[in-house]
Amino acid sequence: MSAEATAPSAGTPATSPAATSEPTALPPIDLRPLFAPRSIAVVGASARGGIAETVANNLRVMGSKTRCHFVNPRYDELYGQPCYPSLEALPEVPDTVMVAVNPLRATAVVEDAAHAGVPAVVIPGGGVVEGGEAAAAMQREVAEIARRHGIALLGPNCMGMVDLTTNAATYIGDINPWQPRGGIAGIAQSGSVTDAFIHAGNRIGFSRIIGCGSEVVLDACDFLAYCLDDPETHAVILFLEGFKRPERFLALADRALELGKPVMVLKVGRSSQAQAAAIAHSGSLAGEDRATDVALRAAGVIRCDDLDELLETAELVEGTRRLGRRVGRGRTGVITVSTGEASLIADLAPRTGVDLPPVPDAARRELLERLPTLGYIGNPLDPWGATDPTTAYGAAFDAFAGSGAYDVLALVHDFPYRSLASEVETAREVTAELIRVTAGHDDLLPVYVSLTSGDPTPETKQQLDEAGGIPMLRGTVEAFRAIASLSEWERSRDRRLADGPRRPGWPALAADPTPWGHEPGSRRDPATAGGAGSASLHSTAALSERDSLALLAGAGIPVTPARPASDADAAVAAAADLGYPVAVKLDAAGLAHKSDAGRVRLDLADEETLRRAAAELLAIGERLASDGPDVRGLLVEPMAAPGLELIVGLTRDPQVGPVVLVGLGGILAEALDDVVLGLAPVGRDEALAMLARLRGARLLDGVRGRLPIARGAVADILVGVGRLGIERPEIEAIDLNPVIASATGAIAVDALVVIAAS
Amino acid sequence: MSAEATAPSAGTPATSPAATSEPTALPPIDLRPLFAPRSIAVVGASARGGIAETVANNLRVMGSKTRCHFVNPRYDELYGQPCYPSLEALPEVPDTVMVAVNPLRATAVVEDAAHAGVPAVVIPGGGVVEGGEAAAAMQREVAEIARRHGIALLGPNCMGMVDLTTNAATYIGDINPWQPRGGIAGIAQSGSVTDAFIHAGNRIGFSRIIGCGSEVVLDACDFLAYCLDDPETHAVILFLEGFKRPERFLALADRALELGKPVMVLKVGRSSQAQAAAIAHSGSLAGEDRATDVALRAAGVIRCDDLDELLETAELVEGTRRLGRRVGRGRTGVITVSTGEASLIADLAPRTGVDLPPVPDAARRELLERLPTLGYIGNPLDPWGATDPTTAYGAAFDAFAGSGAYDVLALVHDFPYRSLASEVETAREVTAELIRVTAGHDDLLPVYVSLTSGDPTPETKQQLDEAGGIPMLRGTVEAFRAIASLSEWERSRDRRLADGPRRPGWPALAADPTPWGHEPGSRRDPATAGGAGSASLHSTAALSERDSLALLAGAGIPVTPARPASDADAAVAAAADLGYPVAVKLDAAGLAHKSDAGRVRLDLADEETLRRAAAELLAIGERLASDGPDVRGLLVEPMAAPGLELIVGLTRDPQVGPVVLVGLGGILAEALDDVVLGLAPVGRDEALAMLARLRGARLLDGVRGRLPIARGAVADILVGVGRLGIERPEIEAIDLNPVIASATGAIAVDALVVIAAS
Repeated sequence: MSAEATAPSAGTPATSPAATSEPTALPPIDLRPLFAPRSIAVVGASARGGIAETVANNLRVMGSKTRCHFVNPRYDELYGQPCYPSLEALPEVPDTVMVAVNPLRATAVVEDAAHAGVPAVVIPGGGVVEGGEAAAAMQREVAEIARRHGIALLGPNCMGMVDLTTNAATYIGDINPWQPRGGIAGIAQSGSVTDAFIHAGNRIGFSRIIGCGSEVVLDACDFLAYCLDDPETHAVILFLEGFKRPERFLALADRALELGKPVMVLKVGRSSQAQAAAIAHSGSLAGEDRATDVALRAAGVIRCDDLDELLETAELVEGTRRLGRRVGRGRTGVITVSTGEASLIADLAPRTGVDLPPVPDAARRELLERLPTLGYIGNPLDPWGATDPTTAYGAAFDAFAGSGAYDVLALVHDFPYRSLASEVETAREVTAELIRVTAGHDDLLPVYVSLTSGDPTPETKQQLDEAGGIPMLRGTVEAFRAIASLSEWERSRDRRLADGPRRPGWPALAADPTPWGHEPGSRRDPATAGGAGSASLHSTAALSERDSLALLAGAGIPVTPARPASDADAAVAAAADLGYPVAVKLDAAGLAHKSDAGRVRLDLADEETLRRAAAELLAIGERLASDGPDVRGLLVEPMAAPGLELIVGLTRDPQVGPVVLVGLGGILAEALDDVVLGLAPVGRDEALAMLARLRGARLLDGVRGRLPIARGAVADILVGVGRLGIERPEIEAIDLNPVIASATGAIAVDALVVIAAS
Repeated sequence: MSAEATAPSAGTPATSPAATSEPTALPPIDLRPLFAPRSIAVVGASARGGIAETVANNLRVMGSKTRCHFVNPRYDELYGQPCYPSLEALPEVPDTVMVAVNPLRATAVVEDAAHAGVPAVVIPGGGVVEGGEAAAAMQREVAEIARRHGIALLGPNCMGMVDLTTNAATYIGDINPWQPRGGIAGIAQSGSVTDAFIHAGNRIGFSRIIGCGSEVVLDACDFLAYCLDDPETHAVILFLEGFKRPERFLALADRALELGKPVMVLKVGRSSQAQAAAIAHSGSLAGEDRATDVALRAAGVIRCDDLDELLETAELVEGTRRLGRRVGRGRTGVITVSTGEASLIADLAPRTGVDLPPVPDAARRELLERLPTLGYIGNPLDPWGATDPTTAYGAAFDAFAGSGAYDVLALVHDFPYRSLASEVETAREVTAELIRVTAGHDDLLPVYVSLTSGDPTPETKQQLDEAGGIPMLRGTVEAFRAIASLSEWERSRDRRLADGPRRPGWPALAADPTPWGHEPGSRRDPATAGGAGSASLHSTAALSERDSLALLAGAGIPVTPARPASDADAAVAAAADLGYPVAVKLDAAGLAHKSDAGRVRLDLADEETLRRAAAELLAIGERLASDGPDVRGLLVEPMAAPGLELIVGLTRDPQVGPVVLVGLGGILAEALDDVVLGLAPVGRDEALAMLARLRGARLLDGVRGRLPIARGAVADILVGVGRLGIERPEIEAIDLNPVIASATGAIAVDALVVIAAS
């Protein structure tokens, strides 16, 4: 159920995340009292049920050793326990105070807790009036008190948390007695998704589930950092509506990658509708999704599209850990029980990014020898009916496993739930062969996949558990996506171990013990975290074309040679040096939209046309100069040889910092929005991969008799632009439009660099 | 489990589906003895279990009144019943014979059945040796006997069938005692998918489930026709690997549309891997998937991508029938329990084609009045926590229902299974409000959707059942796709009732009582059903440019005016009439690839360049003529005014007949493969919709200061080309490349028409 509410009002002081306030001497916050409380006090406990009864009941259901005290001056006893008039009256200082009064009166409780030396407070949701100045004031007040006293404050407006490693819970929903325990930590900015994790049944085992609430002090980053430090947590799944501190999140993701703990994120807000909902409700602004996506992937985060995919990916992650095996390159061999279903699986595969390599010849021969009646041999393979199931499936698994062509061996069964004894027995026989064969191949990851969604037969689940915990994945698409994602993650991890962090500052940022202390204020305020908002907060200036070209040339990026000329005579002299035809441009600083056709003249073939163009541009320049722009004169450039036009750019995203982009230029870019992004800095291989991901990438190979362009030369420009984004933080944006690429090289013929003016 | 096998060998005589053989006087086939057998005889019944035991057990489990006899000369008694030495010895002529001997010996059993006057035979799979000449011979033999005697033959190599309307089954897998009954017929060309339908649990209720097997006599079309005639069947789901008679399938789909019985198809074979598997295993060839897809949609078929989507769409179809309501325009209002989940739902929606219109102002005001604490109002809406659930959800449903903005009101809950009493109770309260509100709005379809996959709480299912059977859909994506698909189906049905069938021949083809009789031989033989195969079977001829242009002009399609010229002088005279610049082409019949640059000269500005070009082309013509093509001389055409280049074409698909296509011309088509197809004939609205579906459709609106093109003029060309495809069956293909479109019109400046030569 939803518990988040109480958005900070528009009156909350806006603070730019970039502009750090003077660090104050705030005490450090220890999260252990929050997640491993020896005792919990519910303040505002009521005889009419609610939080007090739920918390006490959950602790009982879990068999927890955490002591639970009730505080309310109106009762002497509650639920068969003493009830105390105040925190001071308790027999001990509790590790955590749960606020059970109306949240609008939470400030007094937090004040009392601070006074009593309580190290952790949870302010749950429930019955909260959404929005409103009173709620916003309460949030500011409790945040201030908690920061001042170093209190680990969870909430307000959260579901609380369940910690299955310490057997403690400050959760305001009911917990299942049989809640499965495991190595996955779940963190959700949505109360109902927190609850959905609790109720995900036996799909995965959790170490800890945390509902973030309004995050006025502790946020998802702090919880992620805590979980990464926890030896019992092997991976983290997060449901996010927005980032308070995107750079710190990326740094923590990088740390997780280094530690080998996969981080899986379902971040909502891709649609504008979703963004509107997120802004209004919890004050989150989802930011520019494309840039976020690129940044998360660059930091090694596995991004999932829905809850099913999130949970199945987590199950695969846990499975690899249980078995001590890797997904490797993710090359998957699929054995199934039907040719029709094999066709369906082959149809579904391209949507998922999984690689289903064909059966190598040797394996094919082996199969034909052992199963001479097998009609068709392929991947997916259906050996059903070739002979008895054990022999047929044994032969199929053996041949695939021995071929060396696969990293993952998947048994795909159709509807997983089988009610008939005969079918349960057949499933057992077939599954036993998967287990037998993969036991002998350490380099092969076995997975059991149900073709469709639905709960599996308990017998099969038990059989897989007894074989060391072979992952059981529900749904072919989810399973294949999980395999492809985890394979990409393993590659990212290998690169991380070999090359270090993508951005040099990340390790320090991830290790910062009190990062929250330097960023008071709500990061979810649209005014501070917004896409366009940030750029508009501090002023920027467009360099002139000449300065832009010079800056880029200085960074080793090939640019068109440009000669300054103050008048037509100088322009003619420059053209004589360069050779006709030439282009002439009005060179001015402070003008963003240089592509205005009025300020560029192309293809000037001789002195006469050049003189005419120069005169026109200088006249335009005089008019412009009176409006503010700093007109510097003319630039004369040689006309570039024809080639493929590309756009290369850099933008400093307010959430994730500098991002490089490349697109096809001209009419294609306008018609198709065919642009690929990369988190700066980008390496050369990544730059080449970006080019390959363009929808119109075929054009790079030359169509209609053209030669393929020199992709490496374009990649070098992307690398150089990305490096500028990191090394020159004052650069807000770069536009190279167009870059003209030919078979022998690439050159920027028009450049605009925007820098922060302050 | 898979049961299909025994592909027809390459030796099967190939017969083109287009070339009908002389109709022979074959007896009609009655399918009732197959689906409503009063008695079944299992021939080859064994004491060691197998088919005999399963069939008898299934009939017992179903409480069937169908009598079951055993035939085997080796036993006097089996499973407590008498066993007879032969069919003749039975106390009655059974309606259906089940073949339980080794299928390779099936011919003798079918011969005996024919001799005994048995009207239906089922030859199941199981233990069949795949492929091989013996199996192919058996298939030919039993088909021939069945045709000659009018026997309804199901199989060979099938799972059999379960008919829940007649309470009979000739099924070789085990049936659940609680198999839910309903109005959906399931037909599958895959044995394991047939079985998957049986084991889909309580997701939908079936009238009948049929596993097609090898389809040597009866095929999916015959079963579809039978189900459409059955008053207890309201909709049909099909799992198809290939079409034996695509045109008849389309005709039957059109009939179903007329009858108002939705047909939902999961057709595999989209990927080349899937096509390879299908070819090899059952002899199916999946055909050109894009053309098939377009044809199916044009005939009103709902196409699904996976089994989950197929079942959920069927559940929605049944739900609308149970409630007597429509999906209408499919505008869906979503009420959920969490803002985070609302964001997720908004993110998922664009993948599905569902329309989630914003909340109208009046509804917004009503909501704020009744729920003043509600922070954010949007669609999806999360009213959780605004006050108690009944009041909050009641107000939300009321406001959405009364707004007139929605056709469907969806309650989206997260994980559907709730084990805790408190949550079951909350779900009950919220669901009760959905039921209460929609009971008062006949024009609104209520649906209950689980955000993720998984089985629902039985209490909720019962509550929805008691409210008249409100559909319960598993998975947001599946549910939204189902809503979008059914909305499109309702539009198709309205159009069908208003405009009649898409192709005039369909009603007769659908009504043909013995269509199987005219098409002996296996339609799944790649040689007869293949994509490119058919065209290569009969020879074709390319008309000359002049003849092509004349044919098109005769059909009212605007083409460039072209003047024939036998020599340079005549060309110059023609150019003087037309005005320079002109284009000149070599006009020759029998040359398919006219776009060869060598045979066209463009932009000839004056007499001198025209004479030179004419001389060159005539020289080329002389060389070509000696190789066979019929060179007619030159064509002189005016240069078209510049505009947007498009490709328009017609191809006669071997499976679905004439198909119109349109694409962006020039470099875009080559780089992006941006082509949209439509089943001929296409109406003007459909032609406009095709243009809108181009990925680069933005170019049609004019970029870089160009005017938007006259879409209507291009649409008229598509309509004209489609009509030619229907009216002139000898036309195999048309290429108009390019069609040049401007703000005022569109004209084909190059044309190629290919006709069947025979």
